[in-house]
Amino acid sequence: MDSAKLLDILGNENRRKIIQLLANRPCYVSEISGRLRVGPKAIISHLSMLEQAGLIECSVDEQRRKYFNIANNMRLEVSVSPYAYTVALHDIAFDREKKGESPAAEKKDSPPKEESSVFFLKLSSRLQELKMRQEELAQMQQQLQVEYTEIMDHCLDSIEKVARNPVECELLFEILKNETTLAALCYNLRLHPSIINANLIDLAERGFIEYRIKNNQHYWKICETGVEKK
Amino acid sequence: MDSAKLLDILGNENRRKIIQLLANRPCYVSEISGRLRVGPKAIISHLSMLEQAGLIECSVDEQRRKYFNIANNMRLEVSVSPYAYTVALHDIAFDREKKGESPAAEKKDSPPKEESSVFFLKLSSRLQELKMRQEELAQMQQQLQVEYTEIMDHCLDSIEKVARNPVECELLFEILKNETTLAALCYNLRLHPSIINANLIDLAERGFIEYRIKNNQHYWKICETGVEKK
Repeated sequence: MDSAKLLDILGNENRRKIIQLLANRPCYVSEISGRLRVGPKAIISHLSMLEQAGLIECSVDEQRRKYFNIANNMRLEVSVSPYAYTVALHDIAFDREKKGESPAAEKKDSPPKEESSVFFLKLSSRLQELKMRQEELAQMQQQLQVEYTEIMDHCLDSIEKVARNPVECELLFEILKNETTLAALCYNLRLHPSIINANLIDLAERGFIEYRIKNNQHYWKICETGVEKK
Repeated sequence: MDSAKLLDILGNENRRKIIQLLANRPCYVSEISGRLRVGPKAIISHLSMLEQAGLIECSVDEQRRKYFNIANNMRLEVSVSPYAYTVALHDIAFDREKKGESPAAEKKDSPPKEESSVFFLKLSSRLQELKMRQEELAQMQQQLQVEYTEIMDHCLDSIEKVARNPVECELLFEILKNETTLAALCYNLRLHPSIINANLIDLAERGFIEYRIKNNQHYWKICETGVEKK
């Protein structure tokens, strides 16, 4: 699934509620319809959209009733900030059949009752640790985003000092955000290739930018400095 | 803004494109309309939705033309997995007026031209570091999500071993996911409070669950073990 598809799906409140229900437990259409107080016809149409996208799958129980559950493991990250809008969808590949091979599962073969209890409590406390770790990482990501915006603010100030004309300003700003090609620069800045090229060459001669070749294309980027990493 | 509002906004392809444009540079309505090949009327309606949500703001230039830019710094994280659907929106508070106080900005007061160049290149290489760090963190978050699902799989296995009846199974599963109240359990499992209470007391006596009081309510959670943290 691509991120646009997932955002389209999550853009509807009832679809979000359905996913929420299914993440709690597998459900029948009638259950979902009852919980959401939405007619079964609408629910079925949402479910088929989710199923087509591979987000959920359907199975049949002993009484031959269809039930749905989440079939995917994915993580969507969206950042919106004054200098960046990024959307990343990570399809988290994982093979649940393999679980029997992990060390934690070795005890699976009918341990005595007492041991099961201890094992369960250990797993539960590991889950709590994971949740805490997840929150820590989310906090670190936020701090990074703050620093990113601050540095971009400073960069804008210093671009104004080093650029010799408005075109150079725009070029440095574009290339700073992402390494990019002449064609993309022409499109984004709506300027003739000859103007952009002349400025690129000048900036390169002054040691601000350089290019690398990737897939037979020239990608311009800001020169790397020898500054030690913190 | 709450996460539902942001997901509603991002659920429309043209609104996503508008945000993308504005993250690149502030734009006038006519620019956005031209780039997206969408009539100005529709663009204005999207813009006013974005503005009402506080995601963008509008300013007026010297020629009294209105332009729009991103006014917010936020991060949305959505996880969809077989046992969890979580949506977290982090409104990243940051005070851009304060930037003058940060050490990096001390050099701001008209450094000589040469120094500006070096400063710019240093800032740029710091930006690259930030991007790499962001990717590392994203990877760690994905690994956590994989481990979370694996542990939940094991937990389900061991719940079946330690529970004495289907109600206990369901209770342990619910409480494992989140600490929760009697009322929420009654609602989610659709069982009478007396049945749930009897099972909770039994599980507590056997050392699986305990409660803590928060806001005058009893919250049930899985007992913490003395297991050392890894």
